Amino acid sequence: MASCLLFMGVFSTMSLIPSISSESLIKLPSEGAMLGNRKIKVDDRVYCDSWRLSVETNNAGIWERIPARCERFVEDYMDGERYLSDSDVIAGFSSAFANNVKLGADGRDAWVFDIDETLLSNLPYYESHGFGSDIFNETSFDDWVNEAKAPALPASLRLYKELQQLGFKIFLLTGRSEYQREATEANLLFSGYSKWERLILREESDQGKPATIYKSERRQELVNEGYRIHGSSGDQWSDLLGFAVARRSFKLPNPMYFIL
Amino acid sequence: MASCLLFMGVFSTMSLIPSISSESLIKLPSEGAMLGNRKIKVDDRVYCDSWRLSVETNNAGIWERIPARCERFVEDYMDGERYLSDSDVIAGFSSAFANNVKLGADGRDAWVFDIDETLLSNLPYYESHGFGSDIFNETSFDDWVNEAKAPALPASLRLYKELQQLGFKIFLLTGRSEYQREATEANLLFSGYSKWERLILREESDQGKPATIYKSERRQELVNEGYRIHGSSGDQWSDLLGFAVARRSFKLPNPMYFIL
Repeated sequence: MASCLLFMGVFSTMSLIPSISSESLIKLPSEGAMLGNRKIKVDDRVYCDSWRLSVETNNAGIWERIPARCERFVEDYMDGERYLSDSDVIAGFSSAFANNVKLGADGRDAWVFDIDETLLSNLPYYESHGFGSDIFNETSFDDWVNEAKAPALPASLRLYKELQQLGFKIFLLTGRSEYQREATEANLLFSGYSKWERLILREESDQGKPATIYKSERRQELVNEGYRIHGSSGDQWSDLLGFAVARRSFKLPNPMYFIL
Repeated sequence: MASCLLFMGVFSTMSLIPSISSESLIKLPSEGAMLGNRKIKVDDRVYCDSWRLSVETNNAGIWERIPARCERFVEDYMDGERYLSDSDVIAGFSSAFANNVKLGADGRDAWVFDIDETLLSNLPYYESHGFGSDIFNETSFDDWVNEAKAPALPASLRLYKELQQLGFKIFLLTGRSEYQREATEANLLFSGYSKWERLILREESDQGKPATIYKSERRQELVNEGYRIHGSSGDQWSDLLGFAVARRSFKLPNPMYFIL
């Protein structure tokens, strides 16, 4: 992960982003956009910020629930400017790296994206389900997926389009299942994504596999097809670790939940 | 890195920590301990916090200097309560993991620590050298090393002693060179560390090797000797990645400098 020269950079002007519905990008709420320190004790804020750093660096390992004292902190983080700022800066590093990749003429230069909390944001769902502090309810989450109205994470949409312009083939590798293909495609298109090379979902035989294994196996298939996976973007370490890993992996923030 | 069950835990009472000199632990300065927002624009604070997250998650890849707009932010972070809090929480996760390791009877259960910004803090040096924003001056840093007065990072000292009580063999694997062995040992003892199994420094043949390679090779030697490296603690990704990696790696914070 630490073996490529990298230059700080900014996004090239993204004049080609199509106009998309105002509902299809996550935005700061009209209030609560300030640093979000209402009702959080200073001690809790410092602790929870440290907890979040441990989650994002994978120091926390497997974790099941947001610590009770940090529920409000996570809510404020997700609804405030920091989540968007963190995503922006990560996309900037991703873009800087991508702009320094020398692409081949064979169309085999690839970038792998996860979907949930990477391309699409389920924040509207989690806002009404405790920001990850409620026990995960598969039925209600599936209903939300079927509504196909999750907005894009703005920084990811910009990066996605820039990578396409640069000539990368985009692979979407998600923990969602094959029966959710139609809703997932509809949602991606609704929120501004298009022209992916392949959308890879869990098949029957993948059910029950840890995400790290399932995603590694599918990346390995891409490598076996001759693709060079330069970059991989995901909000879970299980999107990024294992085998057939990308030359550079980019960990997006997600203090709401953990997937093994 | 994400394959071991982990329970949140707290340090067991550390009644065995010997009394050590008041100079040998880093402490909050008498002022400036608040969240450190003096003179930093809100926009810069949000950006720099995102930059720091990208550094700690390795999203930033190779980086050479703190962005100019973040120099004051890094200073406030290092001198304020957040650096100590981040280190504390990471040590807590390390401890929780260590307490769940079932140790063998053969004395081959190992933990690897880096030294600079892991066991010892060079903050007194960096406080007078721009907190990493000045160009690194090897001569003046070597003089500092020879003074052998770097304080312990308190959370690491507690973890170190707890690991010893649990029965782990402690290996110190540092980028410092053999000619600094004496000063390094003196400094470790001064700041409260003792009874390490082995202190591994760069030999002549290691000079010029990337830290990731040098440290992987030395871990491989430990594995070849039959040691099981359960945990590894370091402030650089090059302390943790490569081959012969630990079952769990713990990335300590360091927004001051990057080592490949």
